[in-house]
Amino acid sequence: MKIVTAIDSMKGSLSSVQANAIIDRVFSEQGIVEQIAIADGGEGTVEAFINNYGGRYETIEAHNLVGEKIQATFGWMEKESLAVIESADTAGIQFLDSTLKTHPLNTSTQGIGETIQAAMDFGAKKIIIGLGGTGTIDGGIGALHALGFRFRDQKQNVLEPIGKNLAKIQTISTDKVDQRISTIEFILASDVTSYLTGSKGAVYMFGKQKGLREDEMAEYERSLESFQDKISENTILPGDGAAGGLGIGLRVFLKGRSVSGFSLVVEYSNLLKELEDADLVITGEGKIDDQSLQGKVPVGISVLSKKKKIPVIAFVGMVEGSPEKFKEYGIDVVLPTVDKLMTIEQAMEEAEESLYRVAQRTKDLLSIFKN
Amino acid sequence: MKIVTAIDSMKGSLSSVQANAIIDRVFSEQGIVEQIAIADGGEGTVEAFINNYGGRYETIEAHNLVGEKIQATFGWMEKESLAVIESADTAGIQFLDSTLKTHPLNTSTQGIGETIQAAMDFGAKKIIIGLGGTGTIDGGIGALHALGFRFRDQKQNVLEPIGKNLAKIQTISTDKVDQRISTIEFILASDVTSYLTGSKGAVYMFGKQKGLREDEMAEYERSLESFQDKISENTILPGDGAAGGLGIGLRVFLKGRSVSGFSLVVEYSNLLKELEDADLVITGEGKIDDQSLQGKVPVGISVLSKKKKIPVIAFVGMVEGSPEKFKEYGIDVVLPTVDKLMTIEQAMEEAEESLYRVAQRTKDLLSIFKN
Repeated sequence: MKIVTAIDSMKGSLSSVQANAIIDRVFSEQGIVEQIAIADGGEGTVEAFINNYGGRYETIEAHNLVGEKIQATFGWMEKESLAVIESADTAGIQFLDSTLKTHPLNTSTQGIGETIQAAMDFGAKKIIIGLGGTGTIDGGIGALHALGFRFRDQKQNVLEPIGKNLAKIQTISTDKVDQRISTIEFILASDVTSYLTGSKGAVYMFGKQKGLREDEMAEYERSLESFQDKISENTILPGDGAAGGLGIGLRVFLKGRSVSGFSLVVEYSNLLKELEDADLVITGEGKIDDQSLQGKVPVGISVLSKKKKIPVIAFVGMVEGSPEKFKEYGIDVVLPTVDKLMTIEQAMEEAEESLYRVAQRTKDLLSIFKN
Repeated sequence: MKIVTAIDSMKGSLSSVQANAIIDRVFSEQGIVEQIAIADGGEGTVEAFINNYGGRYETIEAHNLVGEKIQATFGWMEKESLAVIESADTAGIQFLDSTLKTHPLNTSTQGIGETIQAAMDFGAKKIIIGLGGTGTIDGGIGALHALGFRFRDQKQNVLEPIGKNLAKIQTISTDKVDQRISTIEFILASDVTSYLTGSKGAVYMFGKQKGLREDEMAEYERSLESFQDKISENTILPGDGAAGGLGIGLRVFLKGRSVSGFSLVVEYSNLLKELEDADLVITGEGKIDDQSLQGKVPVGISVLSKKKKIPVIAFVGMVEGSPEKFKEYGIDVVLPTVDKLMTIEQAMEEAEESLYRVAQRTKDLLSIFKN
């Protein structure tokens, strides 16, 4: 029996690589287990590239979303002069602390621009930026400022590249821009298909989790609309709203091409090859409900597997929804990892043991009639 | 595929019949499901007999362990003149309320004697008494008093048949005893192999859950020792300690024969016949840990199934322990019914839905490689 395992990271508890390793540990006595690190452009994207495609982590100094110096990391795939950056690495919600300082009005994606700069210094020809998980809503001006773009108000003063200055932008000067950017292919990887503005946009859909109050949203939305009008030449695209508008900023000014993070990770992995002769596919993620299946990693995996008629099992931390709905999406069985009375904290803490246990039970059940 | 399901009652939430019905609902599209109601002499024993063997419930008036009039029930199997009584029906811990009134010193098994009497009035030739779950520790003198035995102190006064009078018993008069008892076969069914006294006896092992305080145990233990010396003619047997000493009382005075409740239920069911051509056995219970497997229903079921090399799955509300240990006892997979973050109260409340869900996932997993 050949099993392919490709489990998405379980946020806050297990990476894709760790989760796959647990499956390998349990099932390897049953046959071959091929581990494919998987991600959707968010958390774990760099790790997935490095594990699947070969590469290394590079560490640089950069600024986080409130301007503190931190160690930033990107993935460097020497053989293709390819850099992979996760936007959350420097601008992620992990830096938020509910104070005014970390409010989206005051934060910046500058660290992402600095990481892009560092990747260019390494000789990158292609840079993949995983969009997702940022605590910012700055339309990407922080990153662009770091690359030499200058956003100016009506008096031609250079604006600090933070959320609250979006509405003040009148002109954009490019004379200081790093000239290398025109020679580089920028790929924007995300799981988000949201537009910059509107009810599913950067403010109304994602603002709350970044600390935006309800009564601040209307004005913030108008800032984004004004910014969009200023830069987009009437083109609005899905993905523009990803990572607090980083999507639109990098699309317009870096000529970035927006792609599905999941598809990109798959492209740079052996998944399709390994599926050719697989007997069983194991996927999973931290949380799933039958209303939010579209765009989720397990569904992406199941679609590819079903083309080859391979059964698909998903291990999921928290499951809500009906088996029938999951089956419609090609997932034969969704197995919750929670298996005893526990709190959310315990569930996070015991994620490894829980996944091990449910994998073991599954192996034992499958063994009953297999062999 | 033929599946035999024999799940023990999950205390406080599902009866064996209900649990089996859920399995039938899920698996019947896969093949034949044979439902065997199972019990071990405790809760669900009457239901198991009536469902498996054919019979009916009879309702009578009797007294509970504090002397309140209640509706009592026993199972009546006309064709064999067989009555089945659960001792907890009138003397169960469900009547305890943490007051002095329901303290074991003050409670009595008289309702059990009254139910035996009623069964004799029905013409019973054989009476099975399921021992277990009582809130009493009266050595059975309550039940015996109801049948005409009189326990007297040194002044020949008749003692009230409650726990605290055990130590005062000097003589026992039998002239008022219902003469029919000598013509009837009494079978004492239990899952308990404990002796009356000692560290695993009625006081030290089971006293606490009946409301006995630590500082009361030594004296209570001496009462039981004195009672045992008085009646047992130096014979002490496992099972004597069941149901607060009801075991020894009915053994000595009714010539009751102590048997495994589980084996008895199996004997009066089609289980062995149905196992002949079964492909899968499903069992389960409310709670299991790998230290307390001995004597548990799922282990009893697995031992019988393994003789015929049939795979065994157990659905269990709360599981603690290693799969290896369960496998040693012949249970191939123990599947917890808890499958999301919940409290104990929710787990009890949602027992039916949880069992349904885990059964469905199991069916789906088994379907992957079966067919």
